[in-house]
Amino acid sequence: MSSLITPYPLKVRALWYDETIRKLCWINTLKLPHEEEIICSDDPARVAKAITDMEIRGAPAIGVAAALAVGVYALRMATTSLDKYIDDLRKAIDTLWKTRPTAHNLFYALSRMNTALERALNKTSDTYSIAKELLEEANNIYWEDVQANIKIGEYGAELVPDDATILTHCNAGALATSAYGTALAVIRIAWYKGKKIRVIATETRPVLQGARLTVYELIKEGIPVTLITDNAVGLLMRKNMIDLAVVGADRITRDGFVVNKIGTYMIALSARENKIPFYVATPSSTIDIDKTIDQVVIEQRSQDEVKYIYGKLITMRDVNAVNYAFDITDPYLVTAIITERGIVKPPYEVNIPKIMGFSR
Amino acid sequence: MSSLITPYPLKVRALWYDETIRKLCWINTLKLPHEEEIICSDDPARVAKAITDMEIRGAPAIGVAAALAVGVYALRMATTSLDKYIDDLRKAIDTLWKTRPTAHNLFYALSRMNTALERALNKTSDTYSIAKELLEEANNIYWEDVQANIKIGEYGAELVPDDATILTHCNAGALATSAYGTALAVIRIAWYKGKKIRVIATETRPVLQGARLTVYELIKEGIPVTLITDNAVGLLMRKNMIDLAVVGADRITRDGFVVNKIGTYMIALSARENKIPFYVATPSSTIDIDKTIDQVVIEQRSQDEVKYIYGKLITMRDVNAVNYAFDITDPYLVTAIITERGIVKPPYEVNIPKIMGFSR
Repeated sequence: MSSLITPYPLKVRALWYDETIRKLCWINTLKLPHEEEIICSDDPARVAKAITDMEIRGAPAIGVAAALAVGVYALRMATTSLDKYIDDLRKAIDTLWKTRPTAHNLFYALSRMNTALERALNKTSDTYSIAKELLEEANNIYWEDVQANIKIGEYGAELVPDDATILTHCNAGALATSAYGTALAVIRIAWYKGKKIRVIATETRPVLQGARLTVYELIKEGIPVTLITDNAVGLLMRKNMIDLAVVGADRITRDGFVVNKIGTYMIALSARENKIPFYVATPSSTIDIDKTIDQVVIEQRSQDEVKYIYGKLITMRDVNAVNYAFDITDPYLVTAIITERGIVKPPYEVNIPKIMGFSR
Repeated sequence: MSSLITPYPLKVRALWYDETIRKLCWINTLKLPHEEEIICSDDPARVAKAITDMEIRGAPAIGVAAALAVGVYALRMATTSLDKYIDDLRKAIDTLWKTRPTAHNLFYALSRMNTALERALNKTSDTYSIAKELLEEANNIYWEDVQANIKIGEYGAELVPDDATILTHCNAGALATSAYGTALAVIRIAWYKGKKIRVIATETRPVLQGARLTVYELIKEGIPVTLITDNAVGLLMRKNMIDLAVVGADRITRDGFVVNKIGTYMIALSARENKIPFYVATPSSTIDIDKTIDQVVIEQRSQDEVKYIYGKLITMRDVNAVNYAFDITDPYLVTAIITERGIVKPPYEVNIPKIMGFSR
């Protein structure tokens, strides 16, 4: 693990650039919490597979991993002739582009890598110089995400009352980003600032990121955590057992529709019904300033994620299953969006373009 | 399986009285859909364990099983001296009474068995005569549930448009009742009446009654069924992929609060938000005319139901988990309650007492 100087303890990391072996390394989240398997690669096809199969998951982590995959690949391939080099890099970007459709960070990061490639080509035809620029851009994307995690955590911590019980869904933690997470950065930094808090984590079917990853992270931190099924959120909110909810996001439109892990929408409905604040914590790289919600592709994944748990068939073998990975939460259900640029409140169609540097 | 003359095909049965061996028989729903294990017993402690462990589950089935357990036990014990006989029967009723706290049908059925015992004792001191009366009352409770299933199905089928996609949660089917189910009676009888329908079944964590039992029943019937995670309900409603929702109930208060499988409340919230009818199908034996919602005990079950799936640990071993088995849905979220006495619409605080034969 390469060194990382950060203002708060960093006990779990999803991915990093290993300078010694010049590879992207990641923890295989599919094997957590039972096994901590580290995989390192400079092969874009291998990283693409890691993203598709969800060894690497979480919108910011996907974006950073794709950028670093291009960076390390550019370094390894720099002995190639220029024409083939450019062609291979473009193919690598394309392969990574097609891994998963919903998280905006992937396209944000790969667009920047593409722009960096074009910019480098305008300056030089030396492959090593191009590689250096690409790796530098990938590291920029990585470091910006680390910094975004910190700022999100610090802004968000101010919204957390002392002695609060916080609900989170899925894993928007270290294992979804470059450092502290998004929703879990809010929780971590509130905790490091001395607030007495407790977390309720939903298990998050079908892939169980809450049960496997969020619980793992919070137990490593020593933050009190209670696991529930996704079904239990409504009753617990109704029984006043939850003070606020904070989740991450895979894409946010300019008018404030939140695309996030399937189940988020019902949590938001339940929060509003019970007058509980519902926050979305996310870097600005998740905000898609161009597309409307109807243009966003909601990924459908394999039926087997629903029908099998740890390889065990939980239903009839031949039943049809539907497996949307994300859902859509309306802007009016979102109390605030916590970004590294500050806390964004409604009206989102005014305030999101403003924080992103666009005027309508 | 004892014979049962019914107006619609009956392809799955949860329990029945076997006249030849004079025992209550049931299918062990914990082993479905992978294994069809039938267990027969005339031991109230064994039946109590079957109810506690959820071999027998579903509010109407629990009530009928408890009544039949008392009936078959009364028959077997009839050689005992009167004083011991009465004492043993009262202990049996008490043991069954304490199995599960939430489903009203259990207390409804056991109260009737208790009344039948007192009534018999006022007439006779012959243990065989008492046994005959108790078994007859248990069979009445059973047959009334069969008839209720049919009436619920017939009333409910009228609410189902042709070409409808119907969401159901948990299992309110044959495996939860004496015959066709409650929510699934509505679906079955709509189907037998020739309506072209499709069902979406939630898997229903933690015990997966939707994935294991509802899918099993519907595939046996040949009714098209699609399995989803509990998290997917909101998105599917939002995408207009669901035309109505119908669920069962474990207890309904006189003012219309519905206590049902954990997760029901968020389904009801999502239905209202998306202007989708939300129906509750239930026999009148589920209606608790006495208690207010604050007096209803919501059962908390073992943490291990959340932490383990088919024996596999899905999280960190030492994490704390909370496992409420039921939640509460407000009356104003319920479009109508389908009972064997007719369809009850709001205002429930007026119309539930009316259908139950009480005036305010």
